[in-house]
Amino acid sequence: MATVKAQVDESLRRPPKGTRDFYPEEMAARRYIEDVWRRVSIRHGFQEIDGPTFEALDLYKVKSGDEIVSQLFSFIDRGGRDLALRPEFTPTLARMVAARAAGLPRPIKWFSIPRCYRAEQPQKGRLREFMQWNVDFIGEASERSGGDKPAGAGTPARRDWSPAERAELECLAVCVDALREFGLDEKDFRIGWNHRQLLTDVLVGVFVPRERLASAFYLLDRLRKYNQAGREELYRQQGCAARERDYFEFIAQVGDHSFSAWLEQLLNKMGREGAAWRSEAGVTPESIRERGVKLEQHLSQSGLPDPCWFDCSIVRGLAYYTGWVFEITDRQGESRAIAGGGRYDQLIEMFGGPSLPAVGFGMGDVVLEILLRDRARLPRRLLPSPDVFIVNALEDSAPADRLVLELRRSQWDEARAQMVRPGLGVQQSYRGTRNIGKLLQEAAASGAKLAVILAPNEWSRNLVRLKNLADRSEKEVFLADLPAAIHAALAT
Amino acid sequence: MATVKAQVDESLRRPPKGTRDFYPEEMAARRYIEDVWRRVSIRHGFQEIDGPTFEALDLYKVKSGDEIVSQLFSFIDRGGRDLALRPEFTPTLARMVAARAAGLPRPIKWFSIPRCYRAEQPQKGRLREFMQWNVDFIGEASERSGGDKPAGAGTPARRDWSPAERAELECLAVCVDALREFGLDEKDFRIGWNHRQLLTDVLVGVFVPRERLASAFYLLDRLRKYNQAGREELYRQQGCAARERDYFEFIAQVGDHSFSAWLEQLLNKMGREGAAWRSEAGVTPESIRERGVKLEQHLSQSGLPDPCWFDCSIVRGLAYYTGWVFEITDRQGESRAIAGGGRYDQLIEMFGGPSLPAVGFGMGDVVLEILLRDRARLPRRLLPSPDVFIVNALEDSAPADRLVLELRRSQWDEARAQMVRPGLGVQQSYRGTRNIGKLLQEAAASGAKLAVILAPNEWSRNLVRLKNLADRSEKEVFLADLPAAIHAALAT
Repeated sequence: MATVKAQVDESLRRPPKGTRDFYPEEMAARRYIEDVWRRVSIRHGFQEIDGPTFEALDLYKVKSGDEIVSQLFSFIDRGGRDLALRPEFTPTLARMVAARAAGLPRPIKWFSIPRCYRAEQPQKGRLREFMQWNVDFIGEASERSGGDKPAGAGTPARRDWSPAERAELECLAVCVDALREFGLDEKDFRIGWNHRQLLTDVLVGVFVPRERLASAFYLLDRLRKYNQAGREELYRQQGCAARERDYFEFIAQVGDHSFSAWLEQLLNKMGREGAAWRSEAGVTPESIRERGVKLEQHLSQSGLPDPCWFDCSIVRGLAYYTGWVFEITDRQGESRAIAGGGRYDQLIEMFGGPSLPAVGFGMGDVVLEILLRDRARLPRRLLPSPDVFIVNALEDSAPADRLVLELRRSQWDEARAQMVRPGLGVQQSYRGTRNIGKLLQEAAASGAKLAVILAPNEWSRNLVRLKNLADRSEKEVFLADLPAAIHAALAT
Repeated sequence: MATVKAQVDESLRRPPKGTRDFYPEEMAARRYIEDVWRRVSIRHGFQEIDGPTFEALDLYKVKSGDEIVSQLFSFIDRGGRDLALRPEFTPTLARMVAARAAGLPRPIKWFSIPRCYRAEQPQKGRLREFMQWNVDFIGEASERSGGDKPAGAGTPARRDWSPAERAELECLAVCVDALREFGLDEKDFRIGWNHRQLLTDVLVGVFVPRERLASAFYLLDRLRKYNQAGREELYRQQGCAARERDYFEFIAQVGDHSFSAWLEQLLNKMGREGAAWRSEAGVTPESIRERGVKLEQHLSQSGLPDPCWFDCSIVRGLAYYTGWVFEITDRQGESRAIAGGGRYDQLIEMFGGPSLPAVGFGMGDVVLEILLRDRARLPRRLLPSPDVFIVNALEDSAPADRLVLELRRSQWDEARAQMVRPGLGVQQSYRGTRNIGKLLQEAAASGAKLAVILAPNEWSRNLVRLKNLADRSEKEVFLADLPAAIHAALAT
């Protein structure tokens, strides 16, 4: 067969723009991150799911409207169907819940670690292809639907925390627990929260006409990211009246607070102006304060290691979220958002399912990995080490090769139909040398715990030497006893 | 906020054609399969890699030509670049090796578990989206390049097995070991092998003019899948002369054999006809037999549990493979191909890298999972069980909720910057009931090993009951001692 050397264009030598190659070191970091996400999700009682990498293009318009299309990688299949690579997992989740809502045990506690795609300009922390951890708690009993008895139990609801609050807390706790498992703590990240309904009630009561709420959310989202000049430009764009502008400037200067302290500042300002609370549907400053304090108490009594800060600038988009929202940000440096989520009680219904309360969050791998590398929190050795390194000082390769395969192989018991001995991680040298010293150096560099030395003298008597590479102790072992001896040595 | 109920078309309620939703049960099966692939790869000393989900469309033409385009999901990014979802991993692998060939330690032993996409008609065992395990052994020392010393060692090559044979054996062994770990054995699968060069030499020597070799490979690939009438049609299409047709019919009838027995049959037939061996470049029946026997001895001495069958119908495409090839098929029923691969010494060069010998294989999840379900080899319980189930018989939910979060959380030692206690898998009931008997039933159904019972009497004395759900033994434990008591109980 003739050698056909293709001319590969320079542009074919790199991964496509905004995507990554994962060589073993990078892949080990990705696996580490995914393993922590998975392990923590599972111990918090969430079950893993996944869906297709692409969905019907129209599915992404249900939640996000037509504008989303410009941010999608879209294509057409053989049947002429419009499809798109998933930019996020939520539409798939909603579709899957809607499709089987009647048959799924409640509450639905699911997580997923999908690969997602955005056709946007790559920048630090934002790539076109990334992994995203999604955790969702769907269909807890709501107060509306009759208290804490989704499975039809006949006892009254527990009297302290509501099912909705408990679901929110579970989501926040799994998120924080994962960050702590990555070695991050309250010095590294900040939990900020907001509440769409509470915020709406305050804004309407104090200074925002109801028809200008969308504009107000838009401004709150941006206020703290702009300097004075930028903000003035925003006010002009949004057509703010002088009083609105005045309040937004006040809010932009107010630092981190509890909700009740923040509310107090706004009410004080209103008092100084002699302005009146605009009451709607019986909402009073007192009723809002009470709800806010209850929420804060719940968060502070939850055993979370970190105080949760009320942050009115956490808006997280206009549609979609219906109540409590949160965002976890890097506390140092650039205040990057590490994770975010909240309550979205109307989503499942939007996708054709029943009305189900829901709360959830997402965390991407790109910002997280930058953060872990910046803070040197990735474990030093991520690549797996073998259990045993075979040092072959014999003439031939065949005996060592056979021993390597024998030790790697797990032992299956036919009669009991189960594994009776797990296979061992085994490596040997691919260099030609038979120099035991050099080979032992290679064994140590591999991170192996044990070395098995095949040397002519012992080999002729069916013996090998088993060496502990940590304490450098050594003993002779009959070949037939080797698997058991290795398992025993590894267990200590 | 007003409820916006979107009208979701019926077509948006299902995953796109040829793709799958993975609800918890299906996802657990996929994870099980991927975990076995990963675990076995690692213990055989392979390192995991991955690349982008899509590549430049042109990258897929390098190996497969323009015809591949009709089988791809292709699209255009914002910069007008033609991209395609990966139909297989090999082009990405070759690109990644070529890009860093100079800096990578040899041999390169990599595996990957990419999700791949084919725009073809879905059928049983073939979907548009699937997982594929890839294992590749690249850049072992070749005999050409001077024996067994890739790292420049000065000792002579080992005298028995060649570096190429050892690499091939390692690939075959990891493949077989994974199948055995899935609980499959020689009754379930068959290893068939062929050798592109050996086969070429035999065909040319016995009855195929060199210029008709491509046609001969095409026929061999199909012979055993067609009945007599279908084969006659094939011969006509391929323009076979009478003598060629005669030999192909003979080959189609010959059963499974060792290579040397197969060669003997062809030579005998030739002898009966009084025909002469067509000698090319010094190749004689004896030299071929010697090479084939050496190969078979190597396979049979490898310690693999199953005899490897020579199978002349294993062709695996026309370009690409350059030497030894293999295919593992379902031995019962439909003879589905479970895995396949072989030697492809020119691939890295085709992608602009140096000349590097390489051998590898792929195994998909779709056929494998069908097989494991058919044979009832998937473990009965795939969903993870919690370690502990909290039975809350108190009025309030808060104490139990706090205990659940406390037990789930791993304990991080700030000073030593390491985990000192791993978090536990903990669940509790979301039903309203405080009936201990009912809650213990739910605990048992969850698969939990232990239950912690919070009952008013003990709780007032800071005590809980720790119950072993297997032997139903129970003891009182102080709340402060609970984490340690649980860890102790789980360790036994």
